[in-house]
Amino acid sequence: MGNYKELWTKLGVDLEKHDKLCAVLPEMYGNTYLTQENRPQGMNYFNSVVAEIHGFRIQELDELKKKGTKVVGTFCVFVPDEIILAAGAVGVGLCAGSEFWVEDGEKVLPRNMCPLIKALMGAKVGGTCPYFQSCDMIIGETTCDGKKKAWEVLDKYVPVHVMEIPQMKRDKDYKLWASEIKEFINKMEELTGNKITVESLKAAMKTVSEKRKALKRLYDLRKYKPSPISGLDSLLISQIAFYDDPERFTQKLNELCDELEERVKEDKGNCGTKKRILITGTPMALPNWKLHSIIESLDAEVVVEENCTGTRYFENQVSSEGETMEQLITNISDRYLNINCACFTPNTGRIDDIVRYVKEYNIDGVIDADLAFCHTYAVESSSVEKELKDRNIPIMHIETDYSTEDSGQIKTRVEAFLEML
Amino acid sequence: MGNYKELWTKLGVDLEKHDKLCAVLPEMYGNTYLTQENRPQGMNYFNSVVAEIHGFRIQELDELKKKGTKVVGTFCVFVPDEIILAAGAVGVGLCAGSEFWVEDGEKVLPRNMCPLIKALMGAKVGGTCPYFQSCDMIIGETTCDGKKKAWEVLDKYVPVHVMEIPQMKRDKDYKLWASEIKEFINKMEELTGNKITVESLKAAMKTVSEKRKALKRLYDLRKYKPSPISGLDSLLISQIAFYDDPERFTQKLNELCDELEERVKEDKGNCGTKKRILITGTPMALPNWKLHSIIESLDAEVVVEENCTGTRYFENQVSSEGETMEQLITNISDRYLNINCACFTPNTGRIDDIVRYVKEYNIDGVIDADLAFCHTYAVESSSVEKELKDRNIPIMHIETDYSTEDSGQIKTRVEAFLEML
Repeated sequence: MGNYKELWTKLGVDLEKHDKLCAVLPEMYGNTYLTQENRPQGMNYFNSVVAEIHGFRIQELDELKKKGTKVVGTFCVFVPDEIILAAGAVGVGLCAGSEFWVEDGEKVLPRNMCPLIKALMGAKVGGTCPYFQSCDMIIGETTCDGKKKAWEVLDKYVPVHVMEIPQMKRDKDYKLWASEIKEFINKMEELTGNKITVESLKAAMKTVSEKRKALKRLYDLRKYKPSPISGLDSLLISQIAFYDDPERFTQKLNELCDELEERVKEDKGNCGTKKRILITGTPMALPNWKLHSIIESLDAEVVVEENCTGTRYFENQVSSEGETMEQLITNISDRYLNINCACFTPNTGRIDDIVRYVKEYNIDGVIDADLAFCHTYAVESSSVEKELKDRNIPIMHIETDYSTEDSGQIKTRVEAFLEML
Repeated sequence: MGNYKELWTKLGVDLEKHDKLCAVLPEMYGNTYLTQENRPQGMNYFNSVVAEIHGFRIQELDELKKKGTKVVGTFCVFVPDEIILAAGAVGVGLCAGSEFWVEDGEKVLPRNMCPLIKALMGAKVGGTCPYFQSCDMIIGETTCDGKKKAWEVLDKYVPVHVMEIPQMKRDKDYKLWASEIKEFINKMEELTGNKITVESLKAAMKTVSEKRKALKRLYDLRKYKPSPISGLDSLLISQIAFYDDPERFTQKLNELCDELEERVKEDKGNCGTKKRILITGTPMALPNWKLHSIIESLDAEVVVEENCTGTRYFENQVSSEGETMEQLITNISDRYLNINCACFTPNTGRIDDIVRYVKEYNIDGVIDADLAFCHTYAVESSSVEKELKDRNIPIMHIETDYSTEDSGQIKTRVEAFLEML
């Protein structure tokens, strides 16, 4: 990484602590990613994004901020990127996937909580994430008890606007959600001083739509047997999607997909021997590559993730029909509330999604992977298991966190599961 | 307890397992309650309710059911008793407070969950609670992730209707909540076949209001120094309030309060030496007497509970103004949504309540007692602690469950806290 100490100091980063984080990531990335064989050339861009993870993009954000652009941090696929972009702001997905931040998070949050929430809080409290330090505002949501209440604590460090996610999906819940999006528009207009118009919103919708299309294209390519790209690489791309410049990201991903299409043609006839795995459950935030890394160290490949760093982020497009704000807001509201998250009751749509993906992606086995202490997914896992078993789809459940202490045990369990398939 | 085996069998109770539960309760009650000195005569009624805990009231419910009355189980102070009563049904608070049920609950729920949810699920799954077995319908709510998702599991055993509790308290949240109450009215009318009218609703509101007044009267008497009743006895009364016949309960409680008023007169001049404790936090369901029992074994008395088995259940009355269903529903909706539960963000009203009670009840120290894995209260505990410390109000935090394993440790911590006061 280049020398960004001055920039980090300006952002209020705790340099000494941050150095420790910077010291571990390259080795971890090297061991996990660069040892993979036969990687597509198009991954070079994404390698460079990781190599410059707290540098190049932070500098870009800094230059934008100098011109008056606002930076808005988010943590959830329910917060509509379209609105942030339409207001001329930059959205940065901040979900935190490293054990490194957990300790600082536990200074202000209970220990019995999901590592993602503790890590995101620790990143801010410890001042060790330049993305957090770049944010003018954070957008929280009420998808789970832990996050809902954590925003009250985070608000002491940085202004937080919270969106209320309904807990069911009836007509009145759609209406509540549409009104939350309207409030979000007001909030973004207030923050940026820019009025969101039908034109700016349509332009933003197009940018986000192109990004979703590129991600969908990547996932469609993974349906081939063998997949032309590893699950690890695909996961990394999804993780980077949350904070990279959307237009550049889309272009680079499409270039990669062009290359993958060539691979698919070359691979024709070679069906591969690896077991094809679908992962469902809670999100895997950067740099949480733990489970993919274990699975792909065995004779298996992850070919689809039914989670927030997977299909839930890009499936279903926002309809661009309509020429009024009212209509566009309804379109956005409808698309987002159709995401099948365990925060809803009931959430049977998730089972339908999994069953559909099992067919579309030629899945041999499903791994339901949940972060520890995530009540919604943990309780839902029993019905996911039952519904899949009823359809003779092999499934195993893993509950884990960001530590590597249980890696050996998980590897043994996954090995046994693969042998059964 | 009388012989109710025939009745229990009819209700589908697992007799053998249930016998084990019946075997431990009398000893536990005897040790905790009957060893208290100088108890009011009026506690005899409540003693008899416990002695007949799975007998007399179950028989009453059975007789009502024979006449066509429906029995409706609830778990939360947000579910309006008025509506159940107005439909001619009987409401039974089912929150479960015994370790006994946890094991069966863990058969269908994750272990990393609050004991209250595991216990209520275990009571049904194991068929060891005649109250559960008597219910024609269960009313769930979305106050926390654990319960919200647990209803999906419970619904496989008994019909569950879920009310969506908003997560904030803005105008639109009040509207959502009012519409949930309307749906609840429809549901109760459908279940019972009885139309809820302005008259029947007003009558039900009066019954519930009288019960709230009696509870408020009890709590007002606890403000005297010394309190004319122990925290243990008062807690038991609150717990029984959730499932006893409301009119009989009110009458018996008022009789007790008459006696307590006499005591207060006699006690005049004797200010007592015991430290006065306010408990705040999560509910204490029958027979969870753990913390009160520890505190009152020391030189201290619990004089108020700012929780769901305390002030949140009876504070604030429903306005009886208005002669239309619409107006009465608004009144009910407003009263219930004013409850300050940690499920809301923000929930600063709870701090205001605690600070007010500290003055009104002459409190020496506050104990914030939360059930393990309750994310909303666990996260909120840090701001409760900060706000109270800022006002020089001594506070300690305890996280515990239904087991007695940590009783010794808690006793030591409470002792140290009392010495500081």
